[in-house]
Amino acid sequence: MAATISFARGAPSLDIVDVDGLRAAADEALAADPGGMTGYGTSVGYVPLREWIAQRHGVTTSQVLVTNGSMQADAFLFDALVAPGDAVVVELPTYDRTLLSLRNRGADVRMVALEPDGIDTAALERVLATGADPTLAHIIPNFQNPAGYTLSGPKRERLIELARAHGFTIFEDDPYVALRFAGETLPTMVSMAPDVTVYASSFSKTVCPGIRVGYLVGPEALIAEIARRATSTYISPNMIAQGIVNQFCRSGRIERSIETVREALRVRAETLCGALAEHLPDARFVAPQGGYFLWVDLPSGTDVAAMADAAADRGVQFVKGTDFVLEGGGSSLRLAYSGVTPAQIEEGVGILAEAYAQAGAPAQAA
Amino acid sequence: MAATISFARGAPSLDIVDVDGLRAAADEALAADPGGMTGYGTSVGYVPLREWIAQRHGVTTSQVLVTNGSMQADAFLFDALVAPGDAVVVELPTYDRTLLSLRNRGADVRMVALEPDGIDTAALERVLATGADPTLAHIIPNFQNPAGYTLSGPKRERLIELARAHGFTIFEDDPYVALRFAGETLPTMVSMAPDVTVYASSFSKTVCPGIRVGYLVGPEALIAEIARRATSTYISPNMIAQGIVNQFCRSGRIERSIETVREALRVRAETLCGALAEHLPDARFVAPQGGYFLWVDLPSGTDVAAMADAAADRGVQFVKGTDFVLEGGGSSLRLAYSGVTPAQIEEGVGILAEAYAQAGAPAQAA
Repeated sequence: MAATISFARGAPSLDIVDVDGLRAAADEALAADPGGMTGYGTSVGYVPLREWIAQRHGVTTSQVLVTNGSMQADAFLFDALVAPGDAVVVELPTYDRTLLSLRNRGADVRMVALEPDGIDTAALERVLATGADPTLAHIIPNFQNPAGYTLSGPKRERLIELARAHGFTIFEDDPYVALRFAGETLPTMVSMAPDVTVYASSFSKTVCPGIRVGYLVGPEALIAEIARRATSTYISPNMIAQGIVNQFCRSGRIERSIETVREALRVRAETLCGALAEHLPDARFVAPQGGYFLWVDLPSGTDVAAMADAAADRGVQFVKGTDFVLEGGGSSLRLAYSGVTPAQIEEGVGILAEAYAQAGAPAQAA
Repeated sequence: MAATISFARGAPSLDIVDVDGLRAAADEALAADPGGMTGYGTSVGYVPLREWIAQRHGVTTSQVLVTNGSMQADAFLFDALVAPGDAVVVELPTYDRTLLSLRNRGADVRMVALEPDGIDTAALERVLATGADPTLAHIIPNFQNPAGYTLSGPKRERLIELARAHGFTIFEDDPYVALRFAGETLPTMVSMAPDVTVYASSFSKTVCPGIRVGYLVGPEALIAEIARRATSTYISPNMIAQGIVNQFCRSGRIERSIETVREALRVRAETLCGALAEHLPDARFVAPQGGYFLWVDLPSGTDVAAMADAAADRGVQFVKGTDFVLEGGGSSLRLAYSGVTPAQIEEGVGILAEAYAQAGAPAQAA
């Protein structure tokens, strides 16, 4: 079997991680603030990084909490806001870990179709009209995981109107925002409507995943409540890692890192779209404007599970669409292009096409 | 007001943290394993560190889970083993955060008196005889927080017998074990009775608190169950921090760091005991053989709350005994000597003695 080509994991390849910059940032940071980085901090996070994030978002520091990765931030937020039985709106499809996390908390998960310009707000209105009364709507506005789609400006406005009218909180889960390589950046909902929005993001995609630094921006009282939960969970998040990120940001390395990552993703996405068009013409997809993911719909009746097995036998991995929904999704799949080189993409799509032809395609197409 | 002298926080002073060693370890580790440290890991922790810990404990790697600090390990363990209403035995006094964490989970907390040679096993037997049927007994065996006491060999054996007879798990919470500066190290209960013990420890006291790396050692099935919880909480703990700790350990720096810390603690503990004997002869205490803490009992009727206020007015802080118990503790206090120099200890105890005479001492002694 050839070396694995993984379209499965939403993670950067090592060549687009600034390892030397991280080494330098670690050294500089520990030299500059040994006491702050080696000591216990508090649960709000490493203070200079908290301040940097607050400035970036134009909010007060008391509205920011820095955590051990944004999944941990999500967990704290769900613990604070979601009780068993609470209705929570999510996109269809959505991030599998979010889905699992909500189901583990006994939430009444209401999936609302995602369109290429974001959640179907008309469908959401219909759900609300049935009296769903959600606590929270979880939205990944930019380059959504798994679909790669981006929520349009008008839909951001409509979502905010609905949140205000129906009294739910928008959870704006935005780890990919910095990774736009085409089109124009849209304002965050937390900047448009801080009264109804809690925002989460991460340095996993701009520094590296192993650094495990994420954060929340939200109303001061909610942040204080989550800080109390964080204190009793782990006293403080990782001060060494957050000190390194702070130095990485303040030294300007993050901007260069983002440029490197964006350019690589642009080329990889372009290569992927081109290869799919060439080798797998049955694939339907929307070319992403940023981020890590591309969602592929294959003709109805395609056996994506069989296709996944056949591709894996040839060393190519991806995630089946069924992982991102509660039901359905059987003829769709997610391709992550963040961790593969253009050459691997070309080779990998060729193998996907073979796997589709051999094992996945509906009978009439085979 | 003079500069603060804090006997309050169980944390090392910066002069006994090997900051240069951390800088070097960070640089070496990132150079040696950039992929492993910058990428997502899995929830069991950074693999080489997990292996190092397993070797140290003479267990298989599948019995080890490395977490973001040992408080997080405790939280996972309690989530896995403690349901609301479950009886849980703890020492009286015990670590305030453990007490809070158990109460927040709705545990039926049963405090059993701690003696200078560890938990009163006869009192524990009486509690068990009433049908308490605990799920877990939380024990800090070495240089207990807050008392500084150490569980004797015979009591370790007795506790294991009781755990086996009554079907509860011993949670051996052992962050201070490496910090012995007098007497002989006793075998861990997890090594004596792996069938009934889950063990937690940390690098907070041997590397530094800000690194937030702790771990669990326990039965393979329980570790696997907790790894599942950890995955859905944060995907993986901090790989950068754990990679740094791994390099710090494997390069031998940790042994030198432990020597530095032990020697400083020995001198600080000796200075503290001497100063208390000289300036505060009403204080009753047991000289610790290691760790960070010394527990002081003052004459019955002492108003330690008033004494704390008077000391704080003079820039000296400590934690009142009442924080470590569910009721009582009003004439006791905890002094942490880990973060203060011998000169600060001398000065601080003088101020404590003044605060006691002025505000704390019972009427007949004032």
